[in-house]
Amino acid sequence: MDAMTTAMSIPSARLCTVPATRNLSSSVSFSTATSLLPKVSVTRGASVSLIRCIAEPAEKTTYTTSVNRNANIAKLQAGYLFPEIARRRNAHIQRYPDAKVISLGIGDTTEPIPTVITGAMEARARALSTLEGYSGYGAEQGEKPLRAGIGAAFYADLGIDETEIFVSDGAKCDITRLQLVFGPNVTMAAQDPSYPAYVDTSVMMGQTGLFQSDSQQYSKIQYMKCTPENDFFPDLSSTPRTDIIFFCSPNNPTGASASRKQLEELVAFAKKNGSIIVYDSAYAIYTSDDSPKSIYEIPGAKECAIETASFSKYAGFTGVRLGWTVVPKALKFADGHPVHTDFNRVMTTCFNGASNVAQAGGLACVSSEGLKAMHETVKFYKENTKILVETFESLGFKTFGGKNAPYVWVQFPGKSSWDVFSEILEQTHIVTTPGSGFGPGGEGFIRASAFGHRENILEASRRLKEYFGSKK
Amino acid sequence: MDAMTTAMSIPSARLCTVPATRNLSSSVSFSTATSLLPKVSVTRGASVSLIRCIAEPAEKTTYTTSVNRNANIAKLQAGYLFPEIARRRNAHIQRYPDAKVISLGIGDTTEPIPTVITGAMEARARALSTLEGYSGYGAEQGEKPLRAGIGAAFYADLGIDETEIFVSDGAKCDITRLQLVFGPNVTMAAQDPSYPAYVDTSVMMGQTGLFQSDSQQYSKIQYMKCTPENDFFPDLSSTPRTDIIFFCSPNNPTGASASRKQLEELVAFAKKNGSIIVYDSAYAIYTSDDSPKSIYEIPGAKECAIETASFSKYAGFTGVRLGWTVVPKALKFADGHPVHTDFNRVMTTCFNGASNVAQAGGLACVSSEGLKAMHETVKFYKENTKILVETFESLGFKTFGGKNAPYVWVQFPGKSSWDVFSEILEQTHIVTTPGSGFGPGGEGFIRASAFGHRENILEASRRLKEYFGSKK
Repeated sequence: MDAMTTAMSIPSARLCTVPATRNLSSSVSFSTATSLLPKVSVTRGASVSLIRCIAEPAEKTTYTTSVNRNANIAKLQAGYLFPEIARRRNAHIQRYPDAKVISLGIGDTTEPIPTVITGAMEARARALSTLEGYSGYGAEQGEKPLRAGIGAAFYADLGIDETEIFVSDGAKCDITRLQLVFGPNVTMAAQDPSYPAYVDTSVMMGQTGLFQSDSQQYSKIQYMKCTPENDFFPDLSSTPRTDIIFFCSPNNPTGASASRKQLEELVAFAKKNGSIIVYDSAYAIYTSDDSPKSIYEIPGAKECAIETASFSKYAGFTGVRLGWTVVPKALKFADGHPVHTDFNRVMTTCFNGASNVAQAGGLACVSSEGLKAMHETVKFYKENTKILVETFESLGFKTFGGKNAPYVWVQFPGKSSWDVFSEILEQTHIVTTPGSGFGPGGEGFIRASAFGHRENILEASRRLKEYFGSKK
Repeated sequence: MDAMTTAMSIPSARLCTVPATRNLSSSVSFSTATSLLPKVSVTRGASVSLIRCIAEPAEKTTYTTSVNRNANIAKLQAGYLFPEIARRRNAHIQRYPDAKVISLGIGDTTEPIPTVITGAMEARARALSTLEGYSGYGAEQGEKPLRAGIGAAFYADLGIDETEIFVSDGAKCDITRLQLVFGPNVTMAAQDPSYPAYVDTSVMMGQTGLFQSDSQQYSKIQYMKCTPENDFFPDLSSTPRTDIIFFCSPNNPTGASASRKQLEELVAFAKKNGSIIVYDSAYAIYTSDDSPKSIYEIPGAKECAIETASFSKYAGFTGVRLGWTVVPKALKFADGHPVHTDFNRVMTTCFNGASNVAQAGGLACVSSEGLKAMHETVKFYKENTKILVETFESLGFKTFGGKNAPYVWVQFPGKSSWDVFSEILEQTHIVTTPGSGFGPGGEGFIRASAFGHRENILEASRRLKEYFGSKK
């Protein structure tokens, strides 16, 4: 039998409770589950108005291609965390249409972008309608002045050349492109808990085994536990060697930032093992103390570390999309081949540059006026963080982070993160992020994001105090 | 020996001719070749001012990680085509600093974007600086009105739901994300010649074997030869079954567009084999005759085809970055799992949405005024195409394409494409694209792109007539 089995439009299981008076052919939905497709028999008449369904194997009724589903994608658990939270938030809004839901969840910026930055984007957009100002394809690696400007603003005196800085549409996208560079045969380690993209893209690339439901971990990934007990810095003496080490500091979700001494230890560990660190510094601008803001502050890091960063949380560019990744030319694969060359090949083959309008905004960000404006907005969010820390602490919860990061990591000992998430959403209409969504090490915590209008943060504080205060 | 071999700052081979009076430590360059690293001995003095170098194995002098280079990336030949052309163009400009180089090469748009579109981008950028107009993370799949607008503008009456349309930062980027969905274990076919991203991303994903220098092809890829002899439509009766079939129409680089009958044949072939077609319709707006503008005009295509497209050549968005990909929910893997679900997972995990400013521009593009403005610009480029066709034909060259695409495919029988490329560049300061850069089937052709200011197209025509006319 070839694959041309006739494709019949068969109403599927979801339609089983649809009154038979509806027009069946127009109510067929492609979004319904396909594993069980129903036989339908309709009995018309006043007394019986529902369709009865009998499940039947899909292959008998629907056309499928003969292409096998990618086994690596099939390993992935549920949806990506944040769309899943959005789904639950939307379901909540449907149940409580009048509730004023406040999001401390996804870590989405809320404050307007300073006009010094938006003005530059406006001007660039306007210029695109003129002969002199029009530009087509830009360099896939980013516009030269922006690469230089990022270097000057964030890597001055660290010996990073502008050609080692690749501008992109964001750190999340660069993580995938880095995985394309590494390929399926590397081993990897990630902090536990951690931002989900590291682990999920590793699974997609085929670097891992199956998900183990008992440990809630994928086999072949080294999960580096980060807890209050170890100051959120992994015990490297017991961490097996891996090719790649993903490390985020200041950390999402715990808010912890690694000290200089800890990062020196990390670099020494990587160099002892010949590993490559992928250092995510997306929150470095939130650092208040003297913790390093770049991995390249650590001597020797250029030979073992890539750094990825973003304007998302610096300038409210979560929707504008602009980030960068530093790949030093001194970083080499075992055969001496520079990682830089391969990253450049992936960038030029799989990407076509960040939007020129966004890059104009980025260039304004790294001007002295732009930097000043960014720091003002960051200061505002840091005040929010302080309000959230005080709120949870006043209620007797132990909190972590919040000092060098816009995230507060709140401990609910002995409780399930998703239960706490649901309880807070149900009782206070506040969306948080369940700690376990970042890995098993996040179980028993929730993450509260400080991105929000001041009145919402204050209102969230009031509701939390009212609800948890009354429970005491 | 562990990987911590001391990393000494050793000047490398490129420095061998640097006078010893330069400060060595500051002139060390990371970009130098690493396969041969030199021992350096410096003899100071007036009579001997050069450094003498003796090559020595790299591992003795430089730190490398122990991470093995990705074997799939290592399979890739040379650089990605267009950066390579840019490199040769730049070298030419250095040799002839006074020459006015005209590019008919990379296919980069040159005309200003209509103000109805840039105005919408300006307004969105400006709004981002206000409380009411600010927006952070958008849906990774694109803003709902834009998805609906693309559906209405390009898929009306074709039964495509807006949730089947994913907005992105461009078709090239989506091709990589589609490869991430498919994974390493699929087989693939591509037209020969074809846009290089299909083959290169397939190699990266590990779907292919090594490059065969005799055939100039990667093993395991089915190259579907498209030549004047077969009307640029592959002989499907002799094409082996593959999981994935990349197909671009109107075609880049040949400019050929498949007829309805040919596309019906392609869809029937895919369905017979249970294959998935990835249909690249990036140039559909250039279609002058009644060739289908979407694969979904062919009955049954929704069960076997993905379509990827872009605003790049519709609205001059090559630098703005905006495209879309249609994944019908009726398209299923062999096990019945919808491809749509996995593409959605890749989009949400590896991507964070197209720039909101670009999306505002996209929404203006699909308004009635925007569509009208786009067609005006397309009309202008099509007039350019006509000039180029007439130029080459008047010189006795056989040309193809140009009718439904902004590309003219010019035949130079018995000649090497790169030789023709070099000859034209050297003699007329015009950049073209060598046909063989699109695959071995492009050997003996060059592609001339119609994207250019009118005066440049006319000047190119004049120079070509002067040079080739005098050779007759």
